[in-house]
Amino acid sequence: MKDLYTLLEERSKSEEYPFHMPGHKRRIEMFSHPYQVDITEIEGFDNLHHPKGILAAAQERAAAFFGAEETYFLINGSTCGILAAMASCIRPGEILLMGRNSHKSAYFAAELAGAHAVYLYPKMDSARGIYGSVLPEQVEEAMEQAGEVRAVFLTSPTYDGVVSDIGAIARRVHARGGILIVDEAHGAHFGLHPYFPREALACGADLVIQSLHKTLPSLTQTALLHVQGERADRERLRRYLGGFQSSSPSYVLMASIDRCIGTLEKRGPSYFDEYVEMLLDTRRQLGELRRLHLVTGREKELSCFAYDRSKIVISLENTEWSGEELMDRLRRNYRLELEMSAPGYVTALTSPGDSREGFGRLAEALRELDDTAKPGKKRWEFWGGQEPNEVVWPLCQAVNRPWERIPLEECQGRISAEYVYLYPPGIPILTPGERISKRLEGKLLELKRNGYSLEGMDDLEAEALRVIKE
Amino acid sequence: MKDLYTLLEERSKSEEYPFHMPGHKRRIEMFSHPYQVDITEIEGFDNLHHPKGILAAAQERAAAFFGAEETYFLINGSTCGILAAMASCIRPGEILLMGRNSHKSAYFAAELAGAHAVYLYPKMDSARGIYGSVLPEQVEEAMEQAGEVRAVFLTSPTYDGVVSDIGAIARRVHARGGILIVDEAHGAHFGLHPYFPREALACGADLVIQSLHKTLPSLTQTALLHVQGERADRERLRRYLGGFQSSSPSYVLMASIDRCIGTLEKRGPSYFDEYVEMLLDTRRQLGELRRLHLVTGREKELSCFAYDRSKIVISLENTEWSGEELMDRLRRNYRLELEMSAPGYVTALTSPGDSREGFGRLAEALRELDDTAKPGKKRWEFWGGQEPNEVVWPLCQAVNRPWERIPLEECQGRISAEYVYLYPPGIPILTPGERISKRLEGKLLELKRNGYSLEGMDDLEAEALRVIKE
Repeated sequence: MKDLYTLLEERSKSEEYPFHMPGHKRRIEMFSHPYQVDITEIEGFDNLHHPKGILAAAQERAAAFFGAEETYFLINGSTCGILAAMASCIRPGEILLMGRNSHKSAYFAAELAGAHAVYLYPKMDSARGIYGSVLPEQVEEAMEQAGEVRAVFLTSPTYDGVVSDIGAIARRVHARGGILIVDEAHGAHFGLHPYFPREALACGADLVIQSLHKTLPSLTQTALLHVQGERADRERLRRYLGGFQSSSPSYVLMASIDRCIGTLEKRGPSYFDEYVEMLLDTRRQLGELRRLHLVTGREKELSCFAYDRSKIVISLENTEWSGEELMDRLRRNYRLELEMSAPGYVTALTSPGDSREGFGRLAEALRELDDTAKPGKKRWEFWGGQEPNEVVWPLCQAVNRPWERIPLEECQGRISAEYVYLYPPGIPILTPGERISKRLEGKLLELKRNGYSLEGMDDLEAEALRVIKE
Repeated sequence: MKDLYTLLEERSKSEEYPFHMPGHKRRIEMFSHPYQVDITEIEGFDNLHHPKGILAAAQERAAAFFGAEETYFLINGSTCGILAAMASCIRPGEILLMGRNSHKSAYFAAELAGAHAVYLYPKMDSARGIYGSVLPEQVEEAMEQAGEVRAVFLTSPTYDGVVSDIGAIARRVHARGGILIVDEAHGAHFGLHPYFPREALACGADLVIQSLHKTLPSLTQTALLHVQGERADRERLRRYLGGFQSSSPSYVLMASIDRCIGTLEKRGPSYFDEYVEMLLDTRRQLGELRRLHLVTGREKELSCFAYDRSKIVISLENTEWSGEELMDRLRRNYRLELEMSAPGYVTALTSPGDSREGFGRLAEALRELDDTAKPGKKRWEFWGGQEPNEVVWPLCQAVNRPWERIPLEECQGRISAEYVYLYPPGIPILTPGERISKRLEGKLLELKRNGYSLEGMDDLEAEALRVIKE
């Protein structure tokens, strides 16, 4: 059997071109020889959990560069930043207002924090099956209705590039005494070049989590947590960061973070010039497609405040193809590996690691496919969970209650004991503690009939559902 | 300013010899070019959180090699294995029996799980300031007294190499319906060569966490979680592992785990032959020291069931030196960097990555220092927290209660709102929710007077203590 490294090495030498994470695209090699620099917290090399020397200095440089008051290196991905941010802001029973289109780590974080989670359901663009932005008035209204909201958790940009008006939202959240946490995992490049939207930190968010590896040249699993202002309890934050991250943090990952930031700092916006020029050119070409539709953020239904044009999202609203079909064709016929496919679209992630050749291959392939795509119309009414579910038990209690497995057909009126979501986009249709309405049961059965794979955090095969025992 | 990588690279070229983690000692280079193989969950490369392909196969190979029913790769260190193991076994309010000499991640895990933690205080070897083993009868007695104990959490080997009788303990825990979780972070090499003790898995533990990077040639932050039997709820375990680890796990770290195991599998026990021979030779030489004392595990006060002879622990019981002094001399005069110093001893970690030259330099240095060490006697009566503290609030509640800071001198009778420990050894003298007795107040003041640095998870400078508001 070939080992994992051998398989990875073979892949790196193949013809396949990566329109997916990480942002270094396996082309930008910031250093080699990981074992030679893989050290531990000996004298002179500081301690990530109590930094006073070189790691403190590296984090300070990062903070200065990103305009934060404090920045923490994360070596367990944005995941641990989300866990720590939420646990530090929310005490058991306090109200958390969170976008329903949050990453699963945010649900897990809410559960651990013992939050009383109330959801903001962004509008669904039913032509494309893409979630729109969260509107400031929606946040305001929800805060008014929910009672004393301790923190608001939003994802901006989304996986699909949709940016919410974080400035206006921050003002409203702060006016009501809340803390705004923004999952900006997909927007670490924001604010670094005028072509990209403004970053959440500059818009006034209190805590911002950014994945470095998604759109910038840093190793996978590296991320940053930025803090500003006095609303977040930094002592609690450090405490939880210390808990959710390995007590033996990898110097390889930390060196990768530091070198990425050093490069960006040294080069400034010009680092992105050639990349942005290629993006502009590619987007111009893709804008001329007839059946495949390049999402631009100007689609009315998405109500974008801004749009991340680094993401190349191709909607299939005018064709009979599914996203999976298009992704497969790109893979098999063109050796282009995209980041993801949803039923109604595909997403290619780009970064400064991309080459002119890569962009050229993508534009060329999509032009050819545009000619062969069969026209058609689709709607994604049932996608996501727009109709709010009744919350009977908070997450943290629901996951610890006795449960039983029952056929999906018999679940109406019962309370779920698990997360059920479609992956992608990975937004839960149902969370533990929510009641399954007649309409929702119908929707689950319809999704199943249509061959969609319903997944839970427990990897449910969707023949049966775990519900809380009555 | 030089960046982190540059500093690390310079160090790797220095004369300094590492008697500390990681186990590859920056000499065994399993691969180079981390960026070239740093991929994400694209087709053909599986998904750590729902493995079905190459990662499933790699984990199965690991399980077969270590004799587990299932093995999980951990890319957030043993820390996340401990968090997931505990959260999966314990529901809020259930009783957890845990060694007081547990790593801080275990306390954090107990807190998150909402465990009602009851502590087992191992006996302190007061001549050396080293915790002894946890005795089977002690576990039995504690289980009898505590009521329905859901899980028992023990550290074996300890940081100092002390191994408890896991076989006898497992039988007693199982007889009373409990689950045994063993933190074997420092013993990944156990059972791989007859010179090392038997591994916890072979002794019947249900869940075992091993750091690969500590004693074997794998990158820092890599670890394994092994499971066997039906006592642990594997569905819950997978759920929590999915939550506590990055949703973008590093293929560099996973490839490192896989390659380490592949090497061990291919070479078998012979992989350790030369290393063990060097260890035997070095330990024989160090056994002849007159003032410095090589800990062998045969010291009666440690009540070792077995001892991990890969750890070279030098006790200063017969000298006037502190561990810090000896560590400093080794560093400054001999360019030997040890793993850690406690007041009464120093520890050198060895591994198959060590060289004959390294062992030679260590033995030579210690022989020279043995001649110059001033004779003296010390006792470490107050070390650790042998006298059980009264638990007023469970950890998970105590950390969320309002608190105030008061001078250490006024804390008698109050309830702590934080962890206080001496680092090293990092064993809490006080945890949140515990009452500060008169005796304990005296002990804290004495430690402070003697210049020891009292640290909390919040990095307390020990001028004042955070206590729960009354």
